[in-house]
Amino acid sequence: MNSIQNPLRLGLLGAGVVASGVVKVLERNQAEIRRRAGRGIEVARVGARNLAKARAALGDGLAITDDLDAVVTDPKVDIVVELIGGTTRARELVLKAIASGKHVVTANKALLAVHGTEIFAAASDKGVMVAFEAAVAGGIPIIKALREGLTANRIQWIAGIINGTTNFILSEMRAKGLDFGTVLKEAQRLGYAEADPTFDIEGVDAAHKATIMSAIAFGIPMQFDKAYVEGITKLQAADINYAEQLGYRIKLLGVTKRRDDVAGGGIELRVHPTLVPAKRLIANVEGAMNAVVVNGDAVGSTLYYGKGAGSEPTASAVVADLVDVTRLHTADPDHRVPHLAFQPDALDNAPVLSIEDVVTSFYLRLRVADQTGVLARITGILAEHDISIDAVLQREAGDDETQTDLIILTHETREGRMNEALSKMQALPTVLAPIVRIRKEELN
Amino acid sequence: MNSIQNPLRLGLLGAGVVASGVVKVLERNQAEIRRRAGRGIEVARVGARNLAKARAALGDGLAITDDLDAVVTDPKVDIVVELIGGTTRARELVLKAIASGKHVVTANKALLAVHGTEIFAAASDKGVMVAFEAAVAGGIPIIKALREGLTANRIQWIAGIINGTTNFILSEMRAKGLDFGTVLKEAQRLGYAEADPTFDIEGVDAAHKATIMSAIAFGIPMQFDKAYVEGITKLQAADINYAEQLGYRIKLLGVTKRRDDVAGGGIELRVHPTLVPAKRLIANVEGAMNAVVVNGDAVGSTLYYGKGAGSEPTASAVVADLVDVTRLHTADPDHRVPHLAFQPDALDNAPVLSIEDVVTSFYLRLRVADQTGVLARITGILAEHDISIDAVLQREAGDDETQTDLIILTHETREGRMNEALSKMQALPTVLAPIVRIRKEELN
Repeated sequence: MNSIQNPLRLGLLGAGVVASGVVKVLERNQAEIRRRAGRGIEVARVGARNLAKARAALGDGLAITDDLDAVVTDPKVDIVVELIGGTTRARELVLKAIASGKHVVTANKALLAVHGTEIFAAASDKGVMVAFEAAVAGGIPIIKALREGLTANRIQWIAGIINGTTNFILSEMRAKGLDFGTVLKEAQRLGYAEADPTFDIEGVDAAHKATIMSAIAFGIPMQFDKAYVEGITKLQAADINYAEQLGYRIKLLGVTKRRDDVAGGGIELRVHPTLVPAKRLIANVEGAMNAVVVNGDAVGSTLYYGKGAGSEPTASAVVADLVDVTRLHTADPDHRVPHLAFQPDALDNAPVLSIEDVVTSFYLRLRVADQTGVLARITGILAEHDISIDAVLQREAGDDETQTDLIILTHETREGRMNEALSKMQALPTVLAPIVRIRKEELN
Repeated sequence: MNSIQNPLRLGLLGAGVVASGVVKVLERNQAEIRRRAGRGIEVARVGARNLAKARAALGDGLAITDDLDAVVTDPKVDIVVELIGGTTRARELVLKAIASGKHVVTANKALLAVHGTEIFAAASDKGVMVAFEAAVAGGIPIIKALREGLTANRIQWIAGIINGTTNFILSEMRAKGLDFGTVLKEAQRLGYAEADPTFDIEGVDAAHKATIMSAIAFGIPMQFDKAYVEGITKLQAADINYAEQLGYRIKLLGVTKRRDDVAGGGIELRVHPTLVPAKRLIANVEGAMNAVVVNGDAVGSTLYYGKGAGSEPTASAVVADLVDVTRLHTADPDHRVPHLAFQPDALDNAPVLSIEDVVTSFYLRLRVADQTGVLARITGILAEHDISIDAVLQREAGDDETQTDLIILTHETREGRMNEALSKMQALPTVLAPIVRIRKEELN
């Protein structure tokens, strides 16, 4: 059999932005891809709910049906590419494709973060591959780096800017000194934020991606329900400004970390606004770009940067998965790259820790009465809780002001302990407004 | 056969810094690696010229011989890891290992850049793998990104800081305003530069790595002999300073670029000091760190950053290759990832262009007489050669000075054309010293 004369046949589910990117890239770069893969890749059939829209998006040359089930069971389809999104219908179709013996490529982070364990178990049973490079950080090959490039390492932590919408908003807030609401409207106008931006600005999208990275970095099951998720909607321009004065930038990071100091081991999995030293490369990632830092015990910190969304950047990851499947489907299934980087029988059961047990340093902003003794009271409370101070910035009150901002950077502490200290500080009569608390990571 | 009970057996050639890193990482992370690879990896035999030194470096527990040929033909060895360096003995041993049906992992960039075509042909004939992640940018999985992560793309260009020694020297020159010679001595004292630093500071090491990236990005044979190579030894502190004032940093870049505007196609392959806009992430890569930017037509620019050298970072890449081989050796050889990313019968014969045909923008520094009309004469010569000017910086001459520095940034032009213009400018009586010319890349 001359494999070059037998192209790999896709069943494509979806006809949106990414699907049209996949069709375009496969068409435009077909010669290049065939030179690499050793055989062609062609779209055999497309399943989309709205036929008219699908034809408008993908062109007339393709066989399009609105019977999505027929695509995933079609004997003329070798691989199913799932790009419809969501977690209900997508789950059914992916499981049905696997049951029909098809390999699956998906860009659906929500599906994997929530139903990944079930899907990978089904795929292992049937000896098929489920590839998902496009599910995290768009065109950046971060899944491949984690799962294959860094296999020598005991991975210590990952910290990533993995949502372009929020990074665009934070970049604009800093550059222009504007408030969250104003920049969100601008982002919506420019197409960087959706009409309903909840999943992005509340950190849910980033948490899906952090969950997936956590699983393949540490060899644990997907545990999205255990992730701590905090978005950027409450972030104020004043804090971005104070952070800057102290040499930091505020980024929405997805963080996952191995905690060897916890008895029996533990994993941190969290998304929240984070102060990062301005001199770190990741602090200088601006606009809608994504970047992920991975720290391994042998290699140290490596960083991966690029476009985390968009039609062709995401298609780049989908097509790379297709080429991988083309190359590797002849390997003994027991010797292929495991879905979650670790062999299915070698997963770890280290628990995801509650946010109370997470250890970070902190940025605190307190609105305080401009009186002597205030700083002593507050630092006294931190000392009582064994929380040591890294830096203090007290804005000088104007002549006619009776209150001022007090900024404190702390060293690392357990979040539960910080919460106790915060509630004592908040109760002081000289603390005049709710205390702002933002986590800080040195990432060194 | 329970594969987990049959570890993969290495024959390790070399007992230096990287070899000891490989032994340490395999030992320390053996559980982690086995969980990923599905089987253990053990050092079955070590070949090293100096037995006493090898025992001191690697410990007493290993079977060490000074008969390197016996290691590569040993039936108890599954994979040969070549870490002796050099191009003569290493070539013999690698070819002998391949002839004996062993897979090979190597960190030897010089060997591949010079003899890669011969070695990969031999490996294809025997159906064995030759993996070389450690040969470029140490622990950064850039080979995997190029060969597998970005397969959907027609790659347009690559630009990398791929030599830590020179990046350390340039970072120090900029930070401290010191001259090359002074910083080189400091780098040697700190261990960032070797006693004989020629290969690093003259750009040869970077050119080996750029050659390898060029081959896998564009599907061309290795052509180190066609690379243009210029080091950093002539770089002056004044130019780093002027570049800074104009918003640029000077980095030693390895650049390879596809030139579709040349009839029949052409590839640029070059290493030289380069002005890069200070706002680009790669311009902010400091010290001995490495970073590579890859531009593909679908994904846009992606960047990969990390430690480019050192014992465990390099070992990280070697061991990742070992895990890859462990995973993939059961695949049909025709379906494995091709050595050079493209199928051996699908290589391109686009020629590597001579430096005269390379297109870049330029930074020029002219020491000129402080007289009226000088700027007009010089810009007139550029205009005659159709070279347009992007920016001019003229240092104001002091009251008692009769000469001054004139800095010109140009737009893109063919280097041959710039050479003609330069020789006319150099001949002007008002140009008082050899003109400094540094290439500039916008990398957008």
